[in-house]
Amino acid sequence: MTIADRWLLPDGMDEVLPPQASRMEELRRGLLDLYYRWGYDQVMPPPAEFLDSLLTGTGTDLDLQTFKLTDQLTGRMMGATADVTPQVARMDAHSLRREGPVRLCYCTSVMRATADPYQGGRSPVQVGVELFGHSGLEADSEIIQLALESLTAAGAGELHLALGHIGIYRSLIEAAALNDEQERALFAALALKSPGAIAREVERTVSDPALADMLAALGELHGGVDVLDRARDVFAGAPATVTAALDELEALQRRVRARFDVSLYFDLSELRGYQYHTGMMFAAYVPGYGHALAKGGRYDDTGRVFGRARPATGFSMDLKQLASLKEAAPARGAILAPAIDEEALGDAVAELRRRGERVIQALPGQRDEPLAHGCDRRLELIDGRWQPTALTQETSV
Amino acid sequence: MTIADRWLLPDGMDEVLPPQASRMEELRRGLLDLYYRWGYDQVMPPPAEFLDSLLTGTGTDLDLQTFKLTDQLTGRMMGATADVTPQVARMDAHSLRREGPVRLCYCTSVMRATADPYQGGRSPVQVGVELFGHSGLEADSEIIQLALESLTAAGAGELHLALGHIGIYRSLIEAAALNDEQERALFAALALKSPGAIAREVERTVSDPALADMLAALGELHGGVDVLDRARDVFAGAPATVTAALDELEALQRRVRARFDVSLYFDLSELRGYQYHTGMMFAAYVPGYGHALAKGGRYDDTGRVFGRARPATGFSMDLKQLASLKEAAPARGAILAPAIDEEALGDAVAELRRRGERVIQALPGQRDEPLAHGCDRRLELIDGRWQPTALTQETSV
Repeated sequence: MTIADRWLLPDGMDEVLPPQASRMEELRRGLLDLYYRWGYDQVMPPPAEFLDSLLTGTGTDLDLQTFKLTDQLTGRMMGATADVTPQVARMDAHSLRREGPVRLCYCTSVMRATADPYQGGRSPVQVGVELFGHSGLEADSEIIQLALESLTAAGAGELHLALGHIGIYRSLIEAAALNDEQERALFAALALKSPGAIAREVERTVSDPALADMLAALGELHGGVDVLDRARDVFAGAPATVTAALDELEALQRRVRARFDVSLYFDLSELRGYQYHTGMMFAAYVPGYGHALAKGGRYDDTGRVFGRARPATGFSMDLKQLASLKEAAPARGAILAPAIDEEALGDAVAELRRRGERVIQALPGQRDEPLAHGCDRRLELIDGRWQPTALTQETSV
Repeated sequence: MTIADRWLLPDGMDEVLPPQASRMEELRRGLLDLYYRWGYDQVMPPPAEFLDSLLTGTGTDLDLQTFKLTDQLTGRMMGATADVTPQVARMDAHSLRREGPVRLCYCTSVMRATADPYQGGRSPVQVGVELFGHSGLEADSEIIQLALESLTAAGAGELHLALGHIGIYRSLIEAAALNDEQERALFAALALKSPGAIAREVERTVSDPALADMLAALGELHGGVDVLDRARDVFAGAPATVTAALDELEALQRRVRARFDVSLYFDLSELRGYQYHTGMMFAAYVPGYGHALAKGGRYDDTGRVFGRARPATGFSMDLKQLASLKEAAPARGAILAPAIDEEALGDAVAELRRRGERVIQALPGQRDEPLAHGCDRRLELIDGRWQPTALTQETSV
């Protein structure tokens, strides 16, 4: 093997170097502190679990993205964490077992076997929150607002929010009583967002004319807030659960707009996460990024596989992507200490560090330009005391 | 599969729940800030790399501990990170390519296929520092001091430091010109720390009587600082590199004791990490823990496989273990906001959070005891303004 091979990194498995790593650390702290202030407690999931636990609930879509590992201790298959949400749902349902609302947050590196082109790489640092134990729109509203607050904290200016509700499609499909094949075909047509394909499939599969009209119209129901009014007309004769979903979106957008200056976009045919989403879904965008920087929604009952069904809503983001919203802050200055082994110098260095200063100890024979290390001062012995003095470009060590 | 199976975690793959997770987060920040003040820049390695890169240098011993993954994009074998040090050495040698000393630090979750009984579990959170580009004892001294400083910051009281130097054994073996089989046998005897076995192997393999005496004595050279004096006698006729190693240990212990109140223990036959260590090695202990909480040493030339040989010295610790040194700080108080959708209340909540307060929004129908969430105050409308007031055990939401 050649040396050139040895330092090659797998595609999408990225290292983070200075100063980008400290920018990410700063952002991590800012977000976790934000979640703390909103009442969210931090948890740290293990880096791998048994596959049976990982690929449930919100994890059902993750099979292909999950690296498989053999547990040498049991012979059972494990998966490296590809998405933290199923793990946090397990903690809420099984490990914490609290009554009432539980608010949890996390920030952890995950890995994915295949690259999701919209997720940037196979080694995102997933950061997010989950609110368990409350099924009302007040919980959904809190989650959406916290997502927008997170993007603002990360440095985003203009915010765009896309809102949908899986309950509309789910209710219509249920009323139409389609079989599995018919449902899959219609789902595929809607996922393509092609009006022609949708109309064809609706005509082929849905016998009730009123429901057929509603499902055919679904693919057109996207755009600004007027979409909700158009939907009221289209779904006037729909099951009550459809109207309830529209009411919920209406109330959510009102609450969000009351506190955020955000452009709203509605897409009632959005079917992302159909396997596990049970209510509202949202995605938050920032100009200049072709994909959502925060994604979330309601996913009730995920905990059932862990023995305790619980309402749940939450969102997640990739810290690596978020960190690119803002430049790393310029490094603070540092003080260079000469390469002398002397107690008084050691005391001065320790005292400066205790006060929060960055002090870099020169090493014997070192010929680096101290300014290259970000030093703007050096310790000098003046009147018998080691004191920091300004370091100019001309000063040599 | 039963529900009971689904929430089972693989042995040694632990989750961290509140409040332990925030204790770990607090410690993570404290340590990374400490390293920043000492001039160390943070890096974040990828969660997996090609095996060829991981199992080099300090990683050569890690084959069995490394989870193997197939990279679907290239078909090549990858390993999940089991030890961060080889990755950081690659970053220094290849990605950064700086001249002179480079100081790097990291804190990242790793996973191990087999449990190391002294490492507590298969999912440690590895935190540590590496100093590249300087071969002098000044760099080693800085590393040891920073390890002791880290343990103190984590809450350790009494500190014990074990010091060794791989150069002594390496020099004697080289002078004795043993073949591979002989070297392996002697190594095994020394690793057993059994005087009988050592004497037998030395007699069998080492022909030079002076060298035989020195190697036989090596197994006895452990204890307090007097070990160095005894070693001076034993190794009076040894190669100059042995004397140089003793000089180095002497200078290191002097420097460390000048700044730390620490019990010193020397073990000149310690052979841990023989594959990659090239100079001094150390381990730091705290009473009540049967294993070292920080381990480190010099491992020059690891970068050679990445195209650039560099002197290197560093140490690492497990944040999960460190976090158990001190109790989590009692939670700060929080303020409960009533489940009312009103702009003035929303403003008051936002303002309190901006000021750093933790405000938990009650959700409609919530019947939890607020004190269980750590709330010591609630927002009440007094004289037309939402204000925090003390919450007593009797107050109900």
